[in-house]
Amino acid sequence: MAKRKIVGVTGIRSEYDIMSSVFKAIHEHDGLDLELIVTGAHLSPKYGLTIKDIERDGFKIADKIESLISGDFASSRVKGLAVQLQGMIQTVTRVNPDFLIVLGDREESMTTALIGAYLNIPVVHLCGGDKVIGNVDDQVRHAVTKLAHLHFTTNQESSERIVKLGEEPFRVYNVGNPGLDRLLNIPELSCEQLSERLGFQILDGEPFLLLIQHVISTEIEHAYEQMNTTLEAVSRLGIKTVLSYPNSDAGSQEMIKAIEEHSQLPFLFISKNIPRLEFVNIMRKASCLIGNSSAGILEAPLLKLPVVNIGNRQKGRLHAQNVQFVEHEISSICDAVSKALYDEEYKKIVYSCENPYGDGQSSHRIAKILADIPIDNKLLIKEITY
Amino acid sequence: MAKRKIVGVTGIRSEYDIMSSVFKAIHEHDGLDLELIVTGAHLSPKYGLTIKDIERDGFKIADKIESLISGDFASSRVKGLAVQLQGMIQTVTRVNPDFLIVLGDREESMTTALIGAYLNIPVVHLCGGDKVIGNVDDQVRHAVTKLAHLHFTTNQESSERIVKLGEEPFRVYNVGNPGLDRLLNIPELSCEQLSERLGFQILDGEPFLLLIQHVISTEIEHAYEQMNTTLEAVSRLGIKTVLSYPNSDAGSQEMIKAIEEHSQLPFLFISKNIPRLEFVNIMRKASCLIGNSSAGILEAPLLKLPVVNIGNRQKGRLHAQNVQFVEHEISSICDAVSKALYDEEYKKIVYSCENPYGDGQSSHRIAKILADIPIDNKLLIKEITY
Amino acid sequence: MAKRKIVGVTGIRSEYDIMSSVFKAIHEHDGLDLELIVTGAHLSPKYGLTIKDIERDGFKIADKIESLISGDFASSRVKGLAVQLQGMIQTVTRVNPDFLIVLGDREESMTTALIGAYLNIPVVHLCGGDKVIGNVDDQVRHAVTKLAHLHFTTNQESSERIVKLGEEPFRVYNVGNPGLDRLLNIPELSCEQLSERLGFQILDGEPFLLLIQHVISTEIEHAYEQMNTTLEAVSRLGIKTVLSYPNSDAGSQEMIKAIEEHSQLPFLFISKNIPRLEFVNIMRKASCLIGNSSAGILEAPLLKLPVVNIGNRQKGRLHAQNVQFVEHEISSICDAVSKALYDEEYKKIVYSCENPYGDGQSSHRIAKILADIPIDNKLLIKEITY
Amino acid sequence: MAKRKIVGVTGIRSEYDIMSSVFKAIHEHDGLDLELIVTGAHLSPKYGLTIKDIERDGFKIADKIESLISGDFASSRVKGLAVQLQGMIQTVTRVNPDFLIVLGDREESMTTALIGAYLNIPVVHLCGGDKVIGNVDDQVRHAVTKLAHLHFTTNQESSERIVKLGEEPFRVYNVGNPGLDRLLNIPELSCEQLSERLGFQILDGEPFLLLIQHVISTEIEHAYEQMNTTLEAVSRLGIKTVLSYPNSDAGSQEMIKAIEEHSQLPFLFISKNIPRLEFVNIMRKASCLIGNSSAGILEAPLLKLPVVNIGNRQKGRLHAQNVQFVEHEISSICDAVSKALYDEEYKKIVYSCENPYGDGQSSHRIAKILADIPIDNKLLIKEITY
Repeated sequence: MAKRKIVGVTGIRSEYDIMSSVFKAIHEHDGLDLELIVTGAHLSPKYGLTIKDIERDGFKIADKIESLISGDFASSRVKGLAVQLQGMIQTVTRVNPDFLIVLGDREESMTTALIGAYLNIPVVHLCGGDKVIGNVDDQVRHAVTKLAHLHFTTNQESSERIVKLGEEPFRVYNVGNPGLDRLLNIPELSCEQLSERLGFQILDGEPFLLLIQHVISTEIEHAYEQMNTTLEAVSRLGIKTVLSYPNSDAGSQEMIKAIEEHSQLPFLFISKNIPRLEFVNIMRKASCLIGNSSAGILEAPLLKLPVVNIGNRQKGRLHAQNVQFVEHEISSICDAVSKALYDEEYKKIVYSCENPYGDGQSSHRIAKILADIPIDNKLLIKEITY
Repeated sequence: MAKRKIVGVTGIRSEYDIMSSVFKAIHEHDGLDLELIVTGAHLSPKYGLTIKDIERDGFKIADKIESLISGDFASSRVKGLAVQLQGMIQTVTRVNPDFLIVLGDREESMTTALIGAYLNIPVVHLCGGDKVIGNVDDQVRHAVTKLAHLHFTTNQESSERIVKLGEEPFRVYNVGNPGLDRLLNIPELSCEQLSERLGFQILDGEPFLLLIQHVISTEIEHAYEQMNTTLEAVSRLGIKTVLSYPNSDAGSQEMIKAIEEHSQLPFLFISKNIPRLEFVNIMRKASCLIGNSSAGILEAPLLKLPVVNIGNRQKGRLHAQNVQFVEHEISSICDAVSKALYDEEYKKIVYSCENPYGDGQSSHRIAKILADIPIDNKLLIKEITY
Repeated sequence: MAKRKIVGVTGIRSEYDIMSSVFKAIHEHDGLDLELIVTGAHLSPKYGLTIKDIERDGFKIADKIESLISGDFASSRVKGLAVQLQGMIQTVTRVNPDFLIVLGDREESMTTALIGAYLNIPVVHLCGGDKVIGNVDDQVRHAVTKLAHLHFTTNQESSERIVKLGEEPFRVYNVGNPGLDRLLNIPELSCEQLSERLGFQILDGEPFLLLIQHVISTEIEHAYEQMNTTLEAVSRLGIKTVLSYPNSDAGSQEMIKAIEEHSQLPFLFISKNIPRLEFVNIMRKASCLIGNSSAGILEAPLLKLPVVNIGNRQKGRLHAQNVQFVEHEISSICDAVSKALYDEEYKKIVYSCENPYGDGQSSHRIAKILADIPIDNKLLIKEITY
Repeated sequence: MAKRKIVGVTGIRSEYDIMSSVFKAIHEHDGLDLELIVTGAHLSPKYGLTIKDIERDGFKIADKIESLISGDFASSRVKGLAVQLQGMIQTVTRVNPDFLIVLGDREESMTTALIGAYLNIPVVHLCGGDKVIGNVDDQVRHAVTKLAHLHFTTNQESSERIVKLGEEPFRVYNVGNPGLDRLLNIPELSCEQLSERLGFQILDGEPFLLLIQHVISTEIEHAYEQMNTTLEAVSRLGIKTVLSYPNSDAGSQEMIKAIEEHSQLPFLFISKNIPRLEFVNIMRKASCLIGNSSAGILEAPLLKLPVVNIGNRQKGRLHAQNVQFVEHEISSICDAVSKALYDEEYKKIVYSCENPYGDGQSSHRIAKILADIPIDNKLLIKEITY
C-alpha cells in the first residue's frame, strides 16, 4: 500500500521544539512519509536561523517560505501571514499530501488550516482547545479548531473544550503534549559541559533562574515596561539568571531594548537562541523558571521545576502545582521566587506534582492515528454538532 | 464628538445586495462615517464589473483590491484570499477605522476577521451562526465567528448557535436579515418595464421560473453535471425560465459550460448579471425560484415566492414553508416545480408563511448599535465562555 | 559530470508554441536537465487551461504558479506580475538551477530576469532586441535585456540592437526563431482532417482568411473599436474567416465583446483556443493572415503566407515581403486582402520571399550553447560596454 | 489649473537623505502636490524606523507598505520586491498621480518603474546612468532606465550613458545631485553640540575617521571578511573612528557580526542610525571617510573631505580627486588613510577639487521641469533610438 504523505508546517524554534519528536515518529513510521514546510522565524537570522537545526535533523524540506516581515507593528504579523499563505498554497498544491499537520496558534496554524479547508486535505491541529485569555492567539487557536479536521490535544480539559466548540467527538484525541517526549530523551549534560557550551558558568548546586518572557499581542504597548519590570526584579534578587530572547512577535523589539539596557548586570547571561539540548539541561538544573513561557506550564512539572509566571500570558491555563502566578510588579516577583527557592513546604509540593499534559509517549500515538484513520467523507466533511 | 469610522468590506454582487442597505444606514447615520474596501469579483469583468454599481451608489471607496485569480482550482480561491489579505492590511492600516464590518463566509469574511483580530480593531460579522453542512464555507463561517467581536445574525437559531460556540452573549444580536430592508424599498417595475430592461418578454400572468445555481465547494467535480441536470429539468418542463450566472467560485466555469450548451433552448433567457432592481422584480413576478440560491431561503418568504432548492447547498438551514428540498434528479425537480405552480393547497401555505429572517428593519438597528456600543476592553478582549 | 539544470518559465500558449521545441531540445540533450515553471494564462480556463498541453508533452513541472488576475485594468497585469514573482522566487530557491530561460516581453520575462539577476543565476532571454514601438512590452523587453545574461535573438538586426544597448557582444547569439523549428516538424493535415477537428469546413482550394488580433497596451481604450473595424472589414469582404481569440491582456474583454457581436456572421468561425497542430495547418492552407499576430511576421514567410498587419502592434519590425501594413480602416484592410488574394505579381513576390528569422534549427543550437558555455564570473558579472 | 499630483517613493534612509530636498521643492511648488509612498527599511526597527523622520518632515504619506523580509538570503530581497510591488500597485491605482518619482537602483526603483510603465504614468528616475560594475544594482539601474520616462542624472557622464542606452535625448536632464542641496543648507553644529547629540566626544582639531561600508550583492559571501578587514585596519591605525551601520541588504547581518566583534575597541564609536544633521556635521569635521559609501563619491568633494574607498562598490564611478581607491587589504587601507591625513600635497589637491555632481540647486530644477513639461504621447510612448 502506498505510504500516506504528511506535510508538516513549522515556523519557529519554540514550536519546532515540541513538534520535532512528532515529525520523527512520522518519519520513522512504515506507513508514512514526511515533508516539512519551513517558514517564518526559522529563516530569519534575527531568530537564530533555526532552519539549520531542521536540516541537521535530516527531514525532507518541501519548501522554504520566507514570510517574516522585519517590522514591529501588529500589521507586520498580518502581512507575514498573507505572504506565507501565498507561498504555502503553491507548495501544498505541488506536494498534494494526505494530511497537513501543524501546532498551536501562530500564523502557521491559520495558513495551514485555511489551505486544508479549501483544498479538502485533512488538517491535523495540535494543542487546540487551550484557553489563554487576553491574546489574539486565543481567537486564532479556536478559529483554527473550527477549520481543522483532527484535534490532538495535550490535556483532557482542552479536549472537552473542543467538543463544546461544536466539533464532532470522533475528531478529538487527548494524546498528551508531544513536547514531553523529546524532553525525556534529551541527553544529560554535566554542569561543566553545559557551562562550556553556553560560554558562562553553571555551578553544581548553585541556585540560578531561567528567564523567558514573550510579548502579549493585546499588551504590545507595555512590552518594554513588562520586560523592564522583570529585569528590575532580577536585579533586586541578585541571583544568577539565564535569559533567552523573546519570540518574533510585534513588540519584541521593545523587549530586546529593555534587555540591552540591563545587559551590564554582572549575574545576567543573555542568549539570543539557546539550542534545545542546552535549554532542557538548563531547565533540569535551574532553581526556578520566571517569565511567561509555556514551558513553565507544559514541561516544568515533569522536571519538578518551580515556575513564577508573570502577567497575563498563561493565565487561566490548566497547570500543576509548580506554578505561581504574579502580576508585573517587582516585589511580587521577588516574593514568589523566594518561596520557590527557600520554602521547604512548597518545594515538597512541587516535587510531587503530576503533569496534566501527558506521559511522554504522544508522538507515536499521533503517528499511529495518522497511519490508521480512514480518509473518507466522514473525516473530510465537517458537521457542527448543534 | 468625532464620528466613528466604519470600514465595510465587499467582494461580490450577491453579498453587496444584502449589505448595501446596511452601508446606506451607516452612511446616513450622524455619528458614523463609512468607507468601503471593494475587492474580489466586484473588479472582474467576468462577473459584471459590479464596482460600477457601488460607485453609482456613491459610497466612499477606501481602496480597490484586485484579488480574484482567473482559475478554477480550489487553490485559486486560497491564492486570491492571500492576495486580498496582503492588500487589505495596507488599507486598514492607513484608514485605521473604529470598526470593520463584513458579511458571510467568503474570502472577504476571513481576511477582514483576521485583520481585525490582529490589529485589535473590532470586527462586526453579519450572518454568522448559520449552518450549511458540506461546504468549506461552513468551516470558514464558524472560524470567522471565533475571530469576530460582534455577531449580527439574521435569525434566533443562529444567535443561539453562536452562543453555543463559546461566544459571550453580549456580543450577539439577532438583527434580522438586512437584505430584506432593501428588498422592501425597491421600486416596483411593470412587466413592460422589466421586459424592456431585460431584453426579453415577461408577460403579466404568464408563469415563469427563476433559476440560480452555485457550485458547492466539496462537490466541485459535479458542478457540470449538477447544472446540466437542472437545465434538463427546465428543458422537460418547457416553462419560460430566467437564468442568472453562478458566483465566481471554483467550478463555476464548468457550470457555465453546461449553461452554454443549453443556450439554444427557446424559452431559456440567460443573464450574466441581473442588476438588483430587475432581480427583485423578477422575484416578485416569478412563479417559482429553483436552484440553490440563498435568496430562496432568506428573501423569498417575504415575497411569498415558492422555492425548489436542489441539492445540498442550503440543506439544513432554517427556512419557511415556501421551500421544497429535492435531489439533483430531473423528475424530482419537475414534480416539485409542478407542485409549486399548480397545487392550490401548497400555494395557500406559501402565501401565509412567516419569515424567520426578520422584518426589513435590520440596517438601522445595526447602525445604531455601531454608534452606541462602548469600544473598550470588554469588547476588544474576547473570552471563550467555557 | 553532473547535468546542468535548466528551469524554463512559460506563461501563455502563444509563447509556449515557440518555446516547446527549445524545451524539447534541452530535455533531450545528454548534458541538460529541464524543469518548467508553468504560470499565468496557462492555468486559466478562460485561456484554454493550456497547462494540459504541457503535461501532455511530458515535461517535468517544477511548480504551477497561479498568477493571472481576473481583471481588465492595466493594474491587473502588474498585480499578476507581483503575485507571480512572489511565487517564483520560492520555486527557483528550491530548484536552484544553473540557468533560467524565458522568452519575450511578458510578465514572465520580467519576473524571471529579476530573480536571476538578484540570485546570481544566469538568465537566458529569447527574442530580445526586437523593436515594437507603442507598447509597454517594448520597455519591458529592453529592461529584461539589461537584466539578462545571455541573449538569443531571432535575427541579425535584434542582435545588433542589443549590442548597442551596451551588452557585451559575447552574450549575444543570433540563433534564429525557434518557433520555426516546430513549425517545420508539424504533421500535415488534409482539409478533411482539419475540418473534422475544427468543427467547420475547410475546403481544398477555397480561399479563406485567418484572423488574430491582440490588444495594444497603450491603446487599450480602442480595443473594442479596433476589433470591431477588422470584423466590419471581414463582413464587407464576405470571405470565409477563421478567428482565434486574443491573448489575456488588459482590454481583451472588450475585444471579445466585439467578437461576440459579430458571432452571427455566417462565414465567420470563432475559436477560443486553436491547438498548435490545427493552427499551423490552417496557416498552411489560409489565403491570408490578418490582424496583428506576431505569427505573421515570424512564421508566415516560411510558409509563403501573405499577411495584412493592421495597426501599430508589429509596426517597425523586421519583416519579409509577405507583409502589408495597414491602418485600422475598413477599406484599407479590404484592399490589402484583395491584393494578397488576387494580385499575381504580389503573389509571386510572397512566394519567393526569404525568412530573416532563421532556418528552423534554433532549438538544438540553443541547447548546445547552454551545455557548453562556461558558468563563471565573466558570464555572471555584467559590465555595460560604455 | 489643477495642480499636478506627484507620488514619490522612498525605501531607506540613505536614499531619503538625497530625496528629501527634492520632495521639499515639489511640496513647496505652486503647481505641484506631493504624496509619498513609504516602504522597505523605513518601516523596520532594525534600520531605525526612519519613517518617523519622514513624518517629522511633514510630507503627506499616501501609504505605508511593509515589505522588508527579515532574512539574509538573496531571495529575501526578491521576496521583498514582490511584496512591495503587490502593495504599491494598490496605492498608485488609488492616488492616480501625474508622475511617479524615485531614485537609484534599489527594489523601490524597479517596482515604481514597472508600475509607471504598465499604468502609463510617467516615471521620473533620478541617478540613472551611473556605472558601478560587479553588482546586481547595476543591472537594475539600467533596466529601470529602460522602463522610465524621464531621467534626471547627477552628472554629464551619466546623461551621455543614458543616451547611448537608446533613450531619446529629450528625456535626459543633467540636474546635478540633489543630495547636495540639502547638504549646503544643513545647520552647522559645534563640536560640543555634536558630541552631546552623539553621546561621545568629537574634539576641535582632533583627527577622526568616518566609516560606512555596505554589502556588495555579488560578494555577499565576503561580507563578514570585508567589514572585518576594514575594522582591523582601523584597529591598527588607532585613530578615533565613527562607524555607521550598513544598509539592509542581504549579507548585512554578517557585517553587523564583525562590527559587534570589534565593539570593544576604545576609539571606535558605533551608531545604528546617525540622523542626517549629525551625519553631515560629522562629514564636515572628519579627517577622512573610509568604506564604500556613495557619500564619498557624491558629497565629499563639496565638503573637501578625503575619501578612502575600499573594494569594488564604487569602482569605476566618476569622481573628484578627493577619492583614493584601495583593495580589501589592511596595509593599503592604512597607507591611504595616512596619505589623506598627513600628505600636504595631496591635501591641497583635495582642497581645490571640483564636484562633477553639481552645485546644490538640483531640487528646484527638478520641480520646475515636473511642473512645466507637457504630459503627452511624446512623453508617454517611448521609442528606442536605434
